[in-house]
Amino acid sequence: MADDFLSAHAGEIATASKRISPFVRHTPLLPDSLDSGLLIKPECLQVTGSFKARGAFNAMLRLTESQPSLAGVIAVSSGNHAQGVALAGRTLGIAVVVVMPEDSNPAKVAATRALGAEVVIDGVSTLNREDIVRQLAAERNLHLLHPFDNWDVIHGQGTAAAELFADRPDTRLVVTPVGGGGLISGTAIAAKSHDASTVVIGVEPETAADAAASMASGRRESLSSPPATIADGVRTMAIGERNFEVISERRLVDGIVTVTEREIAEATVVAWERLKLAVEPTGALPLAAYLAGKLPESSLTALLISGGNASRSVMAEIFRTAADEPHVGGEDATRA
Amino acid sequence: MADDFLSAHAGEIATASKRISPFVRHTPLLPDSLDSGLLIKPECLQVTGSFKARGAFNAMLRLTESQPSLAGVIAVSSGNHAQGVALAGRTLGIAVVVVMPEDSNPAKVAATRALGAEVVIDGVSTLNREDIVRQLAAERNLHLLHPFDNWDVIHGQGTAAAELFADRPDTRLVVTPVGGGGLISGTAIAAKSHDASTVVIGVEPETAADAAASMASGRRESLSSPPATIADGVRTMAIGERNFEVISERRLVDGIVTVTEREIAEATVVAWERLKLAVEPTGALPLAAYLAGKLPESSLTALLISGGNASRSVMAEIFRTAADEPHVGGEDATRA
Repeated sequence: MADDFLSAHAGEIATASKRISPFVRHTPLLPDSLDSGLLIKPECLQVTGSFKARGAFNAMLRLTESQPSLAGVIAVSSGNHAQGVALAGRTLGIAVVVVMPEDSNPAKVAATRALGAEVVIDGVSTLNREDIVRQLAAERNLHLLHPFDNWDVIHGQGTAAAELFADRPDTRLVVTPVGGGGLISGTAIAAKSHDASTVVIGVEPETAADAAASMASGRRESLSSPPATIADGVRTMAIGERNFEVISERRLVDGIVTVTEREIAEATVVAWERLKLAVEPTGALPLAAYLAGKLPESSLTALLISGGNASRSVMAEIFRTAADEPHVGGEDATRA
Repeated sequence: MADDFLSAHAGEIATASKRISPFVRHTPLLPDSLDSGLLIKPECLQVTGSFKARGAFNAMLRLTESQPSLAGVIAVSSGNHAQGVALAGRTLGIAVVVVMPEDSNPAKVAATRALGAEVVIDGVSTLNREDIVRQLAAERNLHLLHPFDNWDVIHGQGTAAAELFADRPDTRLVVTPVGGGGLISGTAIAAKSHDASTVVIGVEPETAADAAASMASGRRESLSSPPATIADGVRTMAIGERNFEVISERRLVDGIVTVTEREIAEATVVAWERLKLAVEPTGALPLAAYLAGKLPESSLTALLISGGNASRSVMAEIFRTAADEPHVGGEDATRA
């Protein structure tokens, strides 16, 4: 039964919230200045600068319970999952190896190394990284921690929305980015178990619209080539199996909206001007959909800003381009 | 007696907190990721994007009580005070005229106009703006609301520190930017009335070190020419008389620290990377002093980040320059 599925997973999210609470932050829920019906859940203020720390801590705390003799953990990640796993490993005393594509955001690579993880990057691409990580895991007897297709990770990511609904139970629409589907799966479980009529929308780049295609076809669709998008956190080729089950099969997500690269870049700058937050392009996806008028009407909308780990060079380029163009509203002009 | 002075003004800050509470935000107090002894009070998340809304609302609410037939208010401001006064005027139904120097941050000029204020800018310089505003005030019978040399404004600005000490009474060192001295005066009164041993430090650019000179000489020193600094919120020529009384004569401020333009720019970028906040160069002054190792040792330090209203072009230039240089620590690398 759908209700059994939902209540069981919602219970796991509640347990995850307690499990990870000593290690992660209950991020504040911020009002918007221009729209009293808009709330911001800024996971850029989370430890490691993104929500990924939630899933990493939940999964790795579970591993220390179930596998006390664990040799280490290996992860494949474009960046934020890597930082979450690295911080959890350092905190919990677990060795961590991270496989990252060569085109990863340098700030995220440096941050992962600084957190004590071993980073494997030479010759790694978005296409071959899954194979490389499986090979290394077998060779070195490491536990492979998937960034999104893992129930413990999904339950951990769902704790952000659980906080949101605890703080503002009257939230009627919640919006998140969609890459592999970890965040939106956990969010959808938290939202629908809170109130079945809560609307859940995912946002992905037009150039990486595999989740939208999967919902449309009812099958798990993959991109044919690595997507070209500045939103480097959602360059996954397909959503995961467990994520597809939650999003599409169980119909816990109401829709997927796509945005253009220009809308993403503009939203990243507007996040600076209007929200006064450092948001990476991936984190700006929900705001991009909001600004483009692509979200359904709602009495109270919450945008889940997933992270803030953009590199200096990416930000320099985004600001340079934005400064040359006429502003597209949303300034702090009428902050109140 | 010093204690009478302190307790009377602290009482006014407590009254101001109640008076302005329907109109301003109690900003969150954020932990730092690298230093557990460091707290961030992000007034960039305040309405209008800076603490200035606090003093503006307090002073204009007092005016509506004392002068119910008021024709309007005129203010001179490089930007953030203007936005605070404009928002308070719009909210309270008071006409507002703002005189801004021609070299003002365009984002701040646009924001002030968008809030419904009349902006006078043609021919206005940092040198002549005080004269122009007095002339207009006399001609049009407007009440001149000084941006810092005004007790109601000082009491309003002090409400930020009052929130800080209410949230974390164990704060031992509080650090603010210094321009005309409104924020640090209110902060010092709040800090010393909370606990006389609390240390209060102000930070100003090396190129605008009039407050440091005034503390050193024991007289109110003025700059000889408008200072060249990217911290456009502290381009004042001298601190105010009331501010000088609090800072120097009453010895409620323990020291003034100066930072270089490069330290300010770097701190603005580090605020993005490490704090995940949109901070304007002026708001980054306390962080610049912290990163440069110029603050005294303390068990718990709070940096008051005054605002986040930087223009796109300023941010593009700061990020472009920073991206070309080796990073000076403080990345989110080891966020925990």
